[in-house]
Amino acid sequence: MNEESYLAAEKLVPATYLNQGKDSKRTHEKCIQTLLYHRKLPSEGWSDARIRLLLNELSLMDSNNFPENVGVGEREARIHSSIVRERHFSLGHGIGRSGDVAAVQPKAAGSSLLNQLTNSLLLDIIQQSGAHFVQSCVLIPVATGMALMMTLLSLRSSRPSARYVIWPRIDQKSCFKSIISAGFEPVIIENVLEGDELMTDVQSMETQINKLGPDTVLAIMTVTSCFAPRGADRLPEVARLSSQYSIPHIVNNAYGVQSSKCMHLLQEANRVGRLDAFIQSTDKNFLVPVGGSVVSSGNPEFIKTVSQSYPGRASSTPTIDVFVTLLGLGSDGYKSLCKERKDNYQYLLKLLSDVAHRHNERVLVTKNNPISIAMSLTSLPSTTDWTELGSMLFLRNVSGTRVVSPGTSKTIGGYTFTNWGSHSNNYPHPYLTAAAAIGMNRQEIDTFCKRLDKTLTKFKKKHVVSDQELKSPQSGANDSEHGNGS
Amino acid sequence: MNEESYLAAEKLVPATYLNQGKDSKRTHEKCIQTLLYHRKLPSEGWSDARIRLLLNELSLMDSNNFPENVGVGEREARIHSSIVRERHFSLGHGIGRSGDVAAVQPKAAGSSLLNQLTNSLLLDIIQQSGAHFVQSCVLIPVATGMALMMTLLSLRSSRPSARYVIWPRIDQKSCFKSIISAGFEPVIIENVLEGDELMTDVQSMETQINKLGPDTVLAIMTVTSCFAPRGADRLPEVARLSSQYSIPHIVNNAYGVQSSKCMHLLQEANRVGRLDAFIQSTDKNFLVPVGGSVVSSGNPEFIKTVSQSYPGRASSTPTIDVFVTLLGLGSDGYKSLCKERKDNYQYLLKLLSDVAHRHNERVLVTKNNPISIAMSLTSLPSTTDWTELGSMLFLRNVSGTRVVSPGTSKTIGGYTFTNWGSHSNNYPHPYLTAAAAIGMNRQEIDTFCKRLDKTLTKFKKKHVVSDQELKSPQSGANDSEHGNGS
Amino acid sequence: MNEESYLAAEKLVPATYLNQGKDSKRTHEKCIQTLLYHRKLPSEGWSDARIRLLLNELSLMDSNNFPENVGVGEREARIHSSIVRERHFSLGHGIGRSGDVAAVQPKAAGSSLLNQLTNSLLLDIIQQSGAHFVQSCVLIPVATGMALMMTLLSLRSSRPSARYVIWPRIDQKSCFKSIISAGFEPVIIENVLEGDELMTDVQSMETQINKLGPDTVLAIMTVTSCFAPRGADRLPEVARLSSQYSIPHIVNNAYGVQSSKCMHLLQEANRVGRLDAFIQSTDKNFLVPVGGSVVSSGNPEFIKTVSQSYPGRASSTPTIDVFVTLLGLGSDGYKSLCKERKDNYQYLLKLLSDVAHRHNERVLVTKNNPISIAMSLTSLPSTTDWTELGSMLFLRNVSGTRVVSPGTSKTIGGYTFTNWGSHSNNYPHPYLTAAAAIGMNRQEIDTFCKRLDKTLTKFKKKHVVSDQELKSPQSGANDSEHGNGS
Amino acid sequence: MNEESYLAAEKLVPATYLNQGKDSKRTHEKCIQTLLYHRKLPSEGWSDARIRLLLNELSLMDSNNFPENVGVGEREARIHSSIVRERHFSLGHGIGRSGDVAAVQPKAAGSSLLNQLTNSLLLDIIQQSGAHFVQSCVLIPVATGMALMMTLLSLRSSRPSARYVIWPRIDQKSCFKSIISAGFEPVIIENVLEGDELMTDVQSMETQINKLGPDTVLAIMTVTSCFAPRGADRLPEVARLSSQYSIPHIVNNAYGVQSSKCMHLLQEANRVGRLDAFIQSTDKNFLVPVGGSVVSSGNPEFIKTVSQSYPGRASSTPTIDVFVTLLGLGSDGYKSLCKERKDNYQYLLKLLSDVAHRHNERVLVTKNNPISIAMSLTSLPSTTDWTELGSMLFLRNVSGTRVVSPGTSKTIGGYTFTNWGSHSNNYPHPYLTAAAAIGMNRQEIDTFCKRLDKTLTKFKKKHVVSDQELKSPQSGANDSEHGNGS
Repeated sequence: MNEESYLAAEKLVPATYLNQGKDSKRTHEKCIQTLLYHRKLPSEGWSDARIRLLLNELSLMDSNNFPENVGVGEREARIHSSIVRERHFSLGHGIGRSGDVAAVQPKAAGSSLLNQLTNSLLLDIIQQSGAHFVQSCVLIPVATGMALMMTLLSLRSSRPSARYVIWPRIDQKSCFKSIISAGFEPVIIENVLEGDELMTDVQSMETQINKLGPDTVLAIMTVTSCFAPRGADRLPEVARLSSQYSIPHIVNNAYGVQSSKCMHLLQEANRVGRLDAFIQSTDKNFLVPVGGSVVSSGNPEFIKTVSQSYPGRASSTPTIDVFVTLLGLGSDGYKSLCKERKDNYQYLLKLLSDVAHRHNERVLVTKNNPISIAMSLTSLPSTTDWTELGSMLFLRNVSGTRVVSPGTSKTIGGYTFTNWGSHSNNYPHPYLTAAAAIGMNRQEIDTFCKRLDKTLTKFKKKHVVSDQELKSPQSGANDSEHGNGS
Repeated sequence: MNEESYLAAEKLVPATYLNQGKDSKRTHEKCIQTLLYHRKLPSEGWSDARIRLLLNELSLMDSNNFPENVGVGEREARIHSSIVRERHFSLGHGIGRSGDVAAVQPKAAGSSLLNQLTNSLLLDIIQQSGAHFVQSCVLIPVATGMALMMTLLSLRSSRPSARYVIWPRIDQKSCFKSIISAGFEPVIIENVLEGDELMTDVQSMETQINKLGPDTVLAIMTVTSCFAPRGADRLPEVARLSSQYSIPHIVNNAYGVQSSKCMHLLQEANRVGRLDAFIQSTDKNFLVPVGGSVVSSGNPEFIKTVSQSYPGRASSTPTIDVFVTLLGLGSDGYKSLCKERKDNYQYLLKLLSDVAHRHNERVLVTKNNPISIAMSLTSLPSTTDWTELGSMLFLRNVSGTRVVSPGTSKTIGGYTFTNWGSHSNNYPHPYLTAAAAIGMNRQEIDTFCKRLDKTLTKFKKKHVVSDQELKSPQSGANDSEHGNGS
Repeated sequence: MNEESYLAAEKLVPATYLNQGKDSKRTHEKCIQTLLYHRKLPSEGWSDARIRLLLNELSLMDSNNFPENVGVGEREARIHSSIVRERHFSLGHGIGRSGDVAAVQPKAAGSSLLNQLTNSLLLDIIQQSGAHFVQSCVLIPVATGMALMMTLLSLRSSRPSARYVIWPRIDQKSCFKSIISAGFEPVIIENVLEGDELMTDVQSMETQINKLGPDTVLAIMTVTSCFAPRGADRLPEVARLSSQYSIPHIVNNAYGVQSSKCMHLLQEANRVGRLDAFIQSTDKNFLVPVGGSVVSSGNPEFIKTVSQSYPGRASSTPTIDVFVTLLGLGSDGYKSLCKERKDNYQYLLKLLSDVAHRHNERVLVTKNNPISIAMSLTSLPSTTDWTELGSMLFLRNVSGTRVVSPGTSKTIGGYTFTNWGSHSNNYPHPYLTAAAAIGMNRQEIDTFCKRLDKTLTKFKKKHVVSDQELKSPQSGANDSEHGNGS
Repeated sequence: MNEESYLAAEKLVPATYLNQGKDSKRTHEKCIQTLLYHRKLPSEGWSDARIRLLLNELSLMDSNNFPENVGVGEREARIHSSIVRERHFSLGHGIGRSGDVAAVQPKAAGSSLLNQLTNSLLLDIIQQSGAHFVQSCVLIPVATGMALMMTLLSLRSSRPSARYVIWPRIDQKSCFKSIISAGFEPVIIENVLEGDELMTDVQSMETQINKLGPDTVLAIMTVTSCFAPRGADRLPEVARLSSQYSIPHIVNNAYGVQSSKCMHLLQEANRVGRLDAFIQSTDKNFLVPVGGSVVSSGNPEFIKTVSQSYPGRASSTPTIDVFVTLLGLGSDGYKSLCKERKDNYQYLLKLLSDVAHRHNERVLVTKNNPISIAMSLTSLPSTTDWTELGSMLFLRNVSGTRVVSPGTSKTIGGYTFTNWGSHSNNYPHPYLTAAAAIGMNRQEIDTFCKRLDKTLTKFKKKHVVSDQELKSPQSGANDSEHGNGS
């Protein structure tokens, strides 16, 4: 409603009442104005009403919503289904342009603005979460693995003779596949066992670099967030290597934004050495549906190159989801979720230790992993196939645990991994993992630990009996990956 | 509501009335059952209510919506914002799994089913649209260009010594970039002019293959749908070459599903030669927001390989959009939209010819282009910079026209194109294009032609005056691509 | 977004693109401004996007959506459920104020504006539909019967000695109950049979008035839209009586807005005599869910009195529904629906005549009923209980037919009606009715007539056999009102 | 999805995954089954997903959503606008039937079920809230005042010679108007002052009954929840009178469900005397938008009579809102809101006392009012017009306070009230009220008290200055009812 409308409205409703409404709208508009000026996440979250107001305004700025528009192109953002139109707030043009997922579209000023703003808000929250060195980031509506692949591909032209990607082993399929799909050869660096924890073998990494020749190496790809008992990689040390040998360093920070430890590791790595970019998932960090990832860097040019490696327009859904969620939370809301997560980690650690104790097991000591916790599974004979335990938990509506028992080999893109799932060829014993991820609540931890306790009891009873009957254990669905995060 | 619920309900509402309701639900469920059994698009479109019923059911099958679920993984599809949750129907897990965008997820039976069904419906509608040979297809939630890139990348392992992609020139940035981003070298085949139309130079293509050696060629990438005055590529002839030299043949069928001519061309190419896969945009063919593309092939193994080249889970939004839209239309609805489009093409041709006649111009004869129409711009001195006309139309709320005037060079990934936008180094004169795309209506054509008529008059008046005043024409925003589809 | 926001946005998106978006928004705002100035229904319908924009703006003008609001009253429009909040566009204060359903609320400028505007749009469309004399109207979120009751109650104070309401018989329960519930005594005027049609007995009405004494009569309540073979009341003649004896005249125009004939009857009645108010249903005329009615009058004071008879605030849902629907249709859209309905009446008449002919029945001649059509049921012995036919049709998914067979008595509020359902103590034979109401489509008419044809055949076969077997006919659910409109 | 669908789905997704989904659905359906069997509010709230599932199922049971339905009635629940359709979950038939708002509709089994269930859930929560004697209740989609009016009207036939309604004064317009609109004469019983509190003058009530004759009295209408310094009426004593003289007793329990004190008062009144029915608002007690009220009684026949006094079908919106909200809360959720409210009352009392103390005022002692609190305004000369303070607070975004200053007379329906707003002809001094209502949070109380503190300071400063300048105080908007609940 413009000024004339308010004036006209005074014939229907007294001006004093209307003025309150106008003031209210002005306040909302001021907040929007502040957002557009500073492009920082407001500290206090916005109401849904204000978020919808802005989405509505942005939507009207796209040509498909122009009242007089006539479209004679092959792509005019016509939306047939009203269900679909509504869920997209009538936004149809997606984000980006032919050659650049961050570019603005002439036909879609609203969508373009939404995209730019979202990238700015992400930059702000990533900085606030501890990676202060970051200067630019871009949300790409693809999985983290795909974004890693695109990041690798965008390095190609500047390193024409490079063939290898150095990769400290992390048993998560998609980041490994990102190397293969991009057409490079992974050089796997096995981890070293320090106490219970699997850590980066920086020494061996350097040996490989020298052996292959630095110019043949496209990049080193490390990881922060991962399943225990692997710890986050020794980012600062790798960053030093990376700097010393002038090799790009890419970090898979999949669900690391939620952890200040992961973020500080990135900040430190950048301070002492080289860190070209790090990539994180939107769904794993910002409580949105699967669909996007964010590439961040201290070097805006790098982000530009990655953006330009996406050929074509892309879905604006992950962007909208992040935009709405971040504005709804505000930076205070997000930080409070992160704080709660950190507390939950301690709470989960405590309760899991209690369960472990009751079953003659123990929680593994993995001080470099701030999110995932592993509990030993050693109280039955070493021949026990523990993987069935995962299925049992899954059937009891526990999702997300991983039971890792030695013995499973896996071949991906021609590379065979011994004891896949354990980040190691020879981890000394089976274990089970659980994670304290953002958005989880205490009640879930309570219920999980109760169910785990019961299930362990049942599992052990059954297998002790089975052993006595000299029968080999029957594994039900026989899938160690039930509900795991691979 | 289960049987017991209906029984209980009889205490509140007479059984006779309830039975009608049960019958109604049973009918809806029968339709869903038929869909699941046959996995074909129903001929009659579904009501929104039935579509929502199915979405709701599918949603409840994902672990994040299990009433008793406890999530201890790092990815549990928690959705913070209620705005976001609602627009995703509480579906949060996306589609695919670490190494395969078509794989099912243990945690997300509903999303997985949705994904499989959507691919089946797409297969059905693509076959029904004329490409009967297709045996498998997969929706990938990325742009067409990105899907082309992934298709190229997935060919790499089977053709280790290949470096080149043979590419008959089509001035559309993202398909060209897909080659560059994938790390291959494009071999540009200039088109030949036949009458007004630019057609594939198959001769020159063969010469290049022989020159480079077939093994060094990763693929030939042709196109069906494109801007006039380029025609669709001579697909059957290229397919024969492709077969003869055992080179994969990939077709960019960006907005070709809507045209039976494009689809028959694909069918014919496959019949007489080799066609490995063709890719189309979901938004350009199925009236959904930007975000997805479909890779189709006569060879299911090929589709499998492409699916497996996507590292990680992906957004389910383009899948949901297509699913909802196709079910809402039914195959009858979709065919009727295609029929209407075809009629609109004739209508646009007629009205545009009238406008052309009034301005001493003519519609170019491009019988191999069933969607886009070009009109000459020759009635002013050959020095006229016509590109301003595009801006003028855009400001008059006409989106999607392209005004192509010689003289613009463009460099993409190190390759320079003379007269970019015209698919040719030396098209004889300027022109303007407009397209009769799916979803357009007659009223839009009427309005477009009226506005074009007026704008042309204004433009010519201004430039004649300008010439008389011996001033060179001022081009406003000077952007020939205003609202075009590049 | 305010001006400063657009300026700030220019750092993210070029001004030229933004300007198009601003222009678009300005156009939308101009339309809103025009609506507020003239308070007439726009001829062209609005897009959902524009409607949502306005709803959003209005919502922000209510105190519960003020960003800084603190509520310390007992009623602050807090909404707990997000499902509920969303379906109400965050509007919670309802319409009206303690003593007046049309009054504005200080706390809810937006809702108040919405309410006033809706009443204005209704006034416009009622005038445009033919009742040009109307000067004021009010939507009350209650059923038509309830609105009739409130209208009667609001007459009480000005006619302290009145006890009776004169009521030409119309067998529709709620209008009769409105008299009883209001505490008055109905004086039933039986209809007279003219050919097939039941018409007002104006003579007998006058006799009654004289007998009771005009001052004891609170009002005469006539009807326009009704089930055939009753025709609309002789409104002009009654209006003359009404004027002559100074008795208020209230018309039940339940679903008459959709029929120009009904509307002209009202206009004519007002011209030649007295017509105090007429009441119509929102759902029956404007294709919204059940919930509201509109009281209209040539006398604004009368409407004011009725509005003030509603004690308390009321649901804004029927108002929102009508507002959204009317704006979405525009007056052109509404008129075209009415035109279509009129054509459908002729079409239904023709098809029903064909069915009748095939079964030795005939369509009754009821030229004063422009919506409902009756078909005789005389081809079986007069002892046949035809009411089972209604159930059979209902079970075959035909809703809305009424089968009227003599013999059912009904007592309402102490008054007994012989042959209830037929508007008459002694209509000569059974019949079946169907209506051509707004929103119906031709396909429904086709299907209805096919199903009716089959069902009649089946019914007659069964009853002929039954008769031969000397059994009396069994009526299944034995409910003549299955799906009827009572 | 039926069993066959799940079987068919196994070709797309492994049975083990599907089974989890089926289990999940089965759990949801079990909950729905339990709801239908016991018709009690579940203790734990339901997720939005389950609520939507049930709404969707119910919607499909209405004839307008039958896939094969053909409608030939005048009312077929066709909904034109997709915005409207969606907000009503495709439910269009409303609730009730011609003569009974609680009756089931043949055409709308789903809506009917929804209506019955909602009434059952309301019965459960009203009993659980303390009125254990209640045996039946009905939600009527009208304001509390209108429901009071309908309740009065439904008493008429059983008390043909009754003309009066005895009404202990409560300065809230709509309950007074309910008497007038129903056509009865209110007999106003002025309250007596006990300390700071205004209480029922039971003595004077009895005197009036004897004076008028019990048979001429239709009912006594008392109130529980009201603005301080009035307390809840002495319900048990009035109930005894009511029983003794055989006069119906109706209680206006507008926002009393949220207070256990009000509910126990009702329970006690029924125990010791006569209480025919009590009425409450849905929006004020259940955090839904304005629109409905609930009539409750220990006598199911009474509720039946009231239901049958609503002539016609009614909006189902208030029903849906209550249904969704109650299921979403569960009884635990509702009780916890009530508990929180009670605590907030104490908190508000404390903070308000502090503010009062700082300004030489005091909180009035009104121990019979568990929701509303009044603070004296006596620190300025008694000539001060304090009503401006209300406007000042309203402009500072405080809604819901009432500033009551003697001197305002009001005439409603011919009855004049001295010092309207204060429930008394001669309350000794001005005061301000605030309420601790359900849904309020502590932060609001904090902010309110801060703003009040500041505003009082400002007001007093201004008026002291004004007085010194010998000017009479200027009252701005001069509306003592800004944001009040009248």
